[in-house]
Amino acid sequence: MTIDITSAAIAAKAASKRLAIFDQRAKNDALERMATALEVSSAGLMAENRQDVENAKTQVTAGALSSAALARLTLTPEKILQMSASVRAVRALEDPVGRILLQSELDEGLELKKISCPFGVIAAIVEARPDAVVQLSALALKSGNALMIKAGAEIGRTASAIVALLSQAAESVGEAPASAFTHVEGREAARELLALHEYVDLMIPRGSAELVRFVSTHTRIPVLGHADGVCHIYVDAAANREMAISLILDSKTQAPSTCNAVETVLVDAAIAGEFLPLLVDALHAHKVKTRGCAMTRSVCRQQMEAVAQDEWRLEYGDLTLAIRVVNGLHGALDHIEGFGSHHTDCIVTDDRSAAERFLREVDSAGVFHNVSTRFSDGYRYGFGAEVGISTGKLHARGPVGLEGLVTYKYVLSGKGHCVSQYSGPGARRFQHEMNLS
Amino acid sequence: MTIDITSAAIAAKAASKRLAIFDQRAKNDALERMATALEVSSAGLMAENRQDVENAKTQVTAGALSSAALARLTLTPEKILQMSASVRAVRALEDPVGRILLQSELDEGLELKKISCPFGVIAAIVEARPDAVVQLSALALKSGNALMIKAGAEIGRTASAIVALLSQAAESVGEAPASAFTHVEGREAARELLALHEYVDLMIPRGSAELVRFVSTHTRIPVLGHADGVCHIYVDAAANREMAISLILDSKTQAPSTCNAVETVLVDAAIAGEFLPLLVDALHAHKVKTRGCAMTRSVCRQQMEAVAQDEWRLEYGDLTLAIRVVNGLHGALDHIEGFGSHHTDCIVTDDRSAAERFLREVDSAGVFHNVSTRFSDGYRYGFGAEVGISTGKLHARGPVGLEGLVTYKYVLSGKGHCVSQYSGPGARRFQHEMNLS
Repeated sequence: MTIDITSAAIAAKAASKRLAIFDQRAKNDALERMATALEVSSAGLMAENRQDVENAKTQVTAGALSSAALARLTLTPEKILQMSASVRAVRALEDPVGRILLQSELDEGLELKKISCPFGVIAAIVEARPDAVVQLSALALKSGNALMIKAGAEIGRTASAIVALLSQAAESVGEAPASAFTHVEGREAARELLALHEYVDLMIPRGSAELVRFVSTHTRIPVLGHADGVCHIYVDAAANREMAISLILDSKTQAPSTCNAVETVLVDAAIAGEFLPLLVDALHAHKVKTRGCAMTRSVCRQQMEAVAQDEWRLEYGDLTLAIRVVNGLHGALDHIEGFGSHHTDCIVTDDRSAAERFLREVDSAGVFHNVSTRFSDGYRYGFGAEVGISTGKLHARGPVGLEGLVTYKYVLSGKGHCVSQYSGPGARRFQHEMNLS
Repeated sequence: MTIDITSAAIAAKAASKRLAIFDQRAKNDALERMATALEVSSAGLMAENRQDVENAKTQVTAGALSSAALARLTLTPEKILQMSASVRAVRALEDPVGRILLQSELDEGLELKKISCPFGVIAAIVEARPDAVVQLSALALKSGNALMIKAGAEIGRTASAIVALLSQAAESVGEAPASAFTHVEGREAARELLALHEYVDLMIPRGSAELVRFVSTHTRIPVLGHADGVCHIYVDAAANREMAISLILDSKTQAPSTCNAVETVLVDAAIAGEFLPLLVDALHAHKVKTRGCAMTRSVCRQQMEAVAQDEWRLEYGDLTLAIRVVNGLHGALDHIEGFGSHHTDCIVTDDRSAAERFLREVDSAGVFHNVSTRFSDGYRYGFGAEVGISTGKLHARGPVGLEGLVTYKYVLSGKGHCVSQYSGPGARRFQHEMNLS
């Protein structure tokens, strides 16, 4: 079936108007029905998924897909239960819509409120992961937005089945609109979506850096996300050595393919001679391949590849780590400014003032002190769930949960007030009784 | 003198690092010196301005510049005092940097803070108004950002003198960086600026809709602003007629060239026959030219032009008003969604539930009830000053003051915490003690 993507976007826009005025109870009711539907239709979903899995297996055999990717796209009854649990977790979050962010009586009877409200239509392009489809659907509904979602082609049948199931469940709630969720199939449709800035209010691309960059440069729709996750750990002269090694191992090996894994370790020249051989031993013992600057390679007895100047920007995404000796805190700040991706960067030190300077001066969405870069995550931050991590500075930065899916508007109520009353001789004065809540 | 714009942007970036850690006292000290410098150098500024004014006068004679524009670019000793007062008004505002927006103890000793921080380098393109140059400079400094500013060519000498003066004053404060302010001269330099996304963090274009659209489509730098201000007033059947007329007159005539002036009035068909002739009489008495839909023209005895379908998107910017009869609230919502610019829209009604629906459903930065659209303004909202009004939904929406010039980052401090402690058997649980402040 070919979807006319413009008609679908117009329907989504109409749905978003209804969703925007959906109250908390109706939204939670819909979410509960969505969770139940996943459980009740578990067998049906598994059947659809089996066909995707069969196709994916031939791709694995052909070397076109990793076995890790195959595992992620394969449904099991347990995974379906986790998916319904994730919907109920979003249900349990506070409603992000209609919050009064600021309230001010500008003058007698002239009241200003800044209120959170949905974006409208969100378009998401996600990996071949059924759980991502479910989680984004739940977050979109709770935040009062309509969702158009394109999942990785490998889960075409599964995603279609999930979206149909969730739509049916959500639409069974009284006054719920049709087209709250739309499954976008095929690359061509996704590409056409990029031109629909008249109807789509926010674009969330997830996946490779190439995908994110392509989307960012081919649409006028605001894009929420990040292309690169080149995270750094700087080991200061005043670092606890054992802590530094343990944090680097965690940041690199706990999940090497994630965007918040560390890619480059910077070491203060003052401790390079004693610290680097210990660090490299520990890394090699954990199967991490190291690459280094000239100084690193000269102080370590272990063999390693050199890093060319333009390679400091690399996001390895595997068990490879680049190491560079820098001239103290200043050198670390320069390197991070020059080669970083403004995602998450960490300093390891017991020197309070060095830590404070690093936290203040590094211009990244996450600036960490004595912790693993892997903490840069919506769930760990306590946001319940995230749609992605934004390295943009406008509006949403760092891990983005429900809060990042809403914006606000100013609601002004009065009794016929005119601006002319506030200018010229005998002008009324504003009171500006402001409350921040 | 030709500026190498890339070198200037690199210098501004370096300055922004210093400004970001400037404390409140130093910033206020610099602002006081800037205010004083304007007063002390009043005569010098006037002399530079006189040459701009002479050139501008020949343009007025040639019909290339309005006399209103000439008046705006002409300095007087009183205007210079107003400019220094505006700097002191910004000085009096609370420091927007370093505010803790959210604080959460994720676990024992693992503390998360969400903190406001500057963007870095802001580039602004503003009208030929000396006061705009001064106000943006003050706002940028207070928010800890470096500013690169291009003003309308008509005030080239004046803007250059102001920026030099303010720079000197700011740099006289201990440890203040050079290049906090950069004057960008010439169209070519401004165009080059658009390519410098590596150094410039935020772009603020002000002026014509064409300028804003050109900037938005020719840069990868996030753009803060709005192209069009097509504001609507919907007069509901349950409106107080006198109030409606007074609000429409204020919204159209108080300052017709501003973006928050009303362009289109929508009238409920149920009252069109009795209300429209009264409204049009009042408008004509105030020299407002009216244009109307077929229904408007048929119920009014007064002559007026028809409005073609695509003309409902027009921003007149003068004493012209378009009038359309709509089928109740639903018709008004449809018209605003189809032809509006998401800036500011108002309903006039005594019907509480109609007002609530309008305020909830209209997707604009300002949604008003029984007040003039001209209130959509940072000063009137109590923000002290504004850099512009954003119709974007990412981050900044509505009038943007100091708050819109800062973003936040997550600061995480711990004692060597690893993510692996939080997964697998015997995993530690997060506490997520969250405080919103």
